[in-house]
Amino acid sequence: MVTTRLPSAGFSITIRIAVTADASSIGRLTTCVGEAGAIVTALDVVDSDPTHVIVDLTCDTADAAHADQVVKQLEDQDGVDVRKVSDRTFLLHLGGKIEVSSKVALRNRDELSMAYTPGVARVCMAIAENPADARRLTIKRNTVAVVSDGSAVLGLGNIGPAAAMPVMEGKAALFKRFGGVDAWPVVLDTQDTDEIVAIVKAIAPAYGGINLEDIAAPRCFEIEARLRELLDIPVFHDDQHGTAICVLAALTNALRVVGKRLEDVRVVVSGAGAAGTAIMKLLLRQGVGDIIAYDRKGALHRGMPDMSETWQWLAENTNKAGYSGDLPGAIAGADVFIGVSAPNLLTGDDIAKMADKSIVFALANPDPEVDPREARKHAAIVATGRSDQPNQINNVLAFPGVFRGMLDVSAEAFTEEMALAAARAIADVVGEDKLNPTVIVPSVFDQRVTPAVAAAIRAVVRGTPAPQNPAAVPESELDKAPEGIF
Amino acid sequence: MVTTRLPSAGFSITIRIAVTADASSIGRLTTCVGEAGAIVTALDVVDSDPTHVIVDLTCDTADAAHADQVVKQLEDQDGVDVRKVSDRTFLLHLGGKIEVSSKVALRNRDELSMAYTPGVARVCMAIAENPADARRLTIKRNTVAVVSDGSAVLGLGNIGPAAAMPVMEGKAALFKRFGGVDAWPVVLDTQDTDEIVAIVKAIAPAYGGINLEDIAAPRCFEIEARLRELLDIPVFHDDQHGTAICVLAALTNALRVVGKRLEDVRVVVSGAGAAGTAIMKLLLRQGVGDIIAYDRKGALHRGMPDMSETWQWLAENTNKAGYSGDLPGAIAGADVFIGVSAPNLLTGDDIAKMADKSIVFALANPDPEVDPREARKHAAIVATGRSDQPNQINNVLAFPGVFRGMLDVSAEAFTEEMALAAARAIADVVGEDKLNPTVIVPSVFDQRVTPAVAAAIRAVVRGTPAPQNPAAVPESELDKAPEGIF
Repeated sequence: MVTTRLPSAGFSITIRIAVTADASSIGRLTTCVGEAGAIVTALDVVDSDPTHVIVDLTCDTADAAHADQVVKQLEDQDGVDVRKVSDRTFLLHLGGKIEVSSKVALRNRDELSMAYTPGVARVCMAIAENPADARRLTIKRNTVAVVSDGSAVLGLGNIGPAAAMPVMEGKAALFKRFGGVDAWPVVLDTQDTDEIVAIVKAIAPAYGGINLEDIAAPRCFEIEARLRELLDIPVFHDDQHGTAICVLAALTNALRVVGKRLEDVRVVVSGAGAAGTAIMKLLLRQGVGDIIAYDRKGALHRGMPDMSETWQWLAENTNKAGYSGDLPGAIAGADVFIGVSAPNLLTGDDIAKMADKSIVFALANPDPEVDPREARKHAAIVATGRSDQPNQINNVLAFPGVFRGMLDVSAEAFTEEMALAAARAIADVVGEDKLNPTVIVPSVFDQRVTPAVAAAIRAVVRGTPAPQNPAAVPESELDKAPEGIF
Repeated sequence: MVTTRLPSAGFSITIRIAVTADASSIGRLTTCVGEAGAIVTALDVVDSDPTHVIVDLTCDTADAAHADQVVKQLEDQDGVDVRKVSDRTFLLHLGGKIEVSSKVALRNRDELSMAYTPGVARVCMAIAENPADARRLTIKRNTVAVVSDGSAVLGLGNIGPAAAMPVMEGKAALFKRFGGVDAWPVVLDTQDTDEIVAIVKAIAPAYGGINLEDIAAPRCFEIEARLRELLDIPVFHDDQHGTAICVLAALTNALRVVGKRLEDVRVVVSGAGAAGTAIMKLLLRQGVGDIIAYDRKGALHRGMPDMSETWQWLAENTNKAGYSGDLPGAIAGADVFIGVSAPNLLTGDDIAKMADKSIVFALANPDPEVDPREARKHAAIVATGRSDQPNQINNVLAFPGVFRGMLDVSAEAFTEEMALAAARAIADVVGEDKLNPTVIVPSVFDQRVTPAVAAAIRAVVRGTPAPQNPAAVPESELDKAPEGIF
């Protein structure tokens, strides 16, 4: 069963149309678009003469095929001439989504001689004499590398470094928008583990943190582990740690709503790649009752042949009963299902067999493991990765605040303790009085999230108590920082 | 003989001082600073009471030692209490000089779904299917990597990647200010040629050009040559090519002023490193009469022992007479001296022995090969790298326009033909009617320079005639480009 996609701005198109100018011609256009299943969001007249009018009609469609179909249905109308179709998403990406700005004006000779030669020489020597000054006198203190080899980009697979750039630029834009962090895309034309490790080590002096992104498992585990050994700045793999933090935050609140305790629940996780593995490790660390992990080869269990090192560890630390049957069998009686795998693996009937007050996180994107509308008939709480459904679990809740906090206190590593603190902070942003089955995570636009996460991270590094009340969380360093030096 | 340095903004300090509030106390402060050889540029009262006044006095000093001395002389005054000294150059560098800005606002869900998931997936797939679209849909079309291993930073030597950052950030700021180019500092914690080549090759997909910076010779030659072979984007080494372009531009105009032809002159070049070698190659390509090249071991000549490959080539293509004597002997009778080496190698008497209407470019920074005031007594034209002397030869005249032009037309390589065209464009910005011995190059703030250089580069790539009149040069792509996408 395929989930029907709804029209969204991600597939918004603008169509330039010439129509004969009779009283109802514009009305016929919007009706036609509506009947084709698209949503008209704007209509602008661009030109006219006594017999014709030319309009730009903008509408949200469900996907590229749907957009083509909308255009086709318009073309089939009498007296309608489609001149040009442009895609708002592509327009937004033209020329890329980020730029480098100078914080110094360089208006005149004096400014030039302070920012560059001869003045800059003294600043260089200060850092040569005291390397810790790099965090004071260069961009290092607020700058993160977003590193990808393009091997596992979104759900698109191994599309390589150039095609991965729009995602990495988008990530950099999100880092700035939500965390005030300067992030720079570093896409690599190599998928060799040793080379990637050597390159990231070499470029590290300019950065205060490394965010690994969309690198395929199991390579990502080794790269992360080796870089953590080599570097004195935090290494964070968002597909692992960001996802795990958000899932734990959502699960914490979901369990509050249904009145269960983590140590009592049985969880089934579908997908034992980067995200699934990190989720399970964090749940185990937090004391979850039991987990059964699934991947393409079935339930991970002790004695399963041909397992990677990571899977072996998982098999030894999950699946207490050694279950080796199918996925529907595993979720029968389970309290929680977490999917980070593939679309449409389960039906509503499967969800119906879960324990009472079951929790379903079907996070495969854009099409979840189970149709959320079907799941909602049987589960107490359903969350997805989709923005058009309640309870969207979105990594933007975590990574901007995690890095904001780590940079604020010059953290030298990202730790599991930070992950737990970040998850708690995100969960606590939704007050007890606001919690319900459709609100287990804050909105990505909730301005309290990043400061709360950043404060929690700073508290871990400083060894101070975690801030308790998110409403009372002080402004982040970001909010206090001036726009420039002057 | 050491050139006396003049006070400059590069060594500007602000001193917070409490003085007793009598009618002449402030006047005594400014007099004291003036007598110490500094220049007062600002005086602000920050607090007062019936008997005292607290002021922030800002002044330009000559160097760090001079700044200390100025403060000491103030402290020695009766009734003067120096509270705090701050250094404006360090203040300007706090937190670094560049930042990453988002060109998309990300105000709401719609913008998020176009800039990031799900909309971004289509943009990625468009590039995966047609790699050339990377220049249309990512930052590649306007972005340059400023790559350094920190091995030869300014005149400071091998200070390493972290200490090189203030220079690379400054370069990025200059790229934006003067060329509208987004440049990003890539400092490398390795000085291994193979590793540097592999890293730059790996990171290249994100960039439309590579600017190598402050990499020691002879390693820089091999790195540049190998990257030119490997990459389909231009590789430019500013210390070589940028310097060579500016020197050729200045020499072109200097020869116009003194009425000599390049093919008739004998040139002595002191310094056969990255800059000197590139200068000599460009002069030879342009048909210079003869050159004698000097380095620490003396005049390069055929049969000299222990020469690098580059020096062997130079020895075979310069020094027609096989001269092997000292530097003062070589410049006796020479028409042009070009120094890119070390301070105070020559005296005014040496310059006096040059040919009639001699030209001296003493570019060692901050202290030139010969005191320019002494040189000016004997030479027709003197240029330096200093901003406090006439005829400053500054690479900022070349690199912003060279990259602006190359990016505008998606150039796949930087060529010698481009270097010649850029030099001609810079020279021609100074109109025949404006030329004189103190004005052989335009000011770095002359807004015509970058567009003229960019237009010349574009003409080379397109195979169209070089634009003739710099006043009539059309606006660069930069000037026509909108600030953002919307």
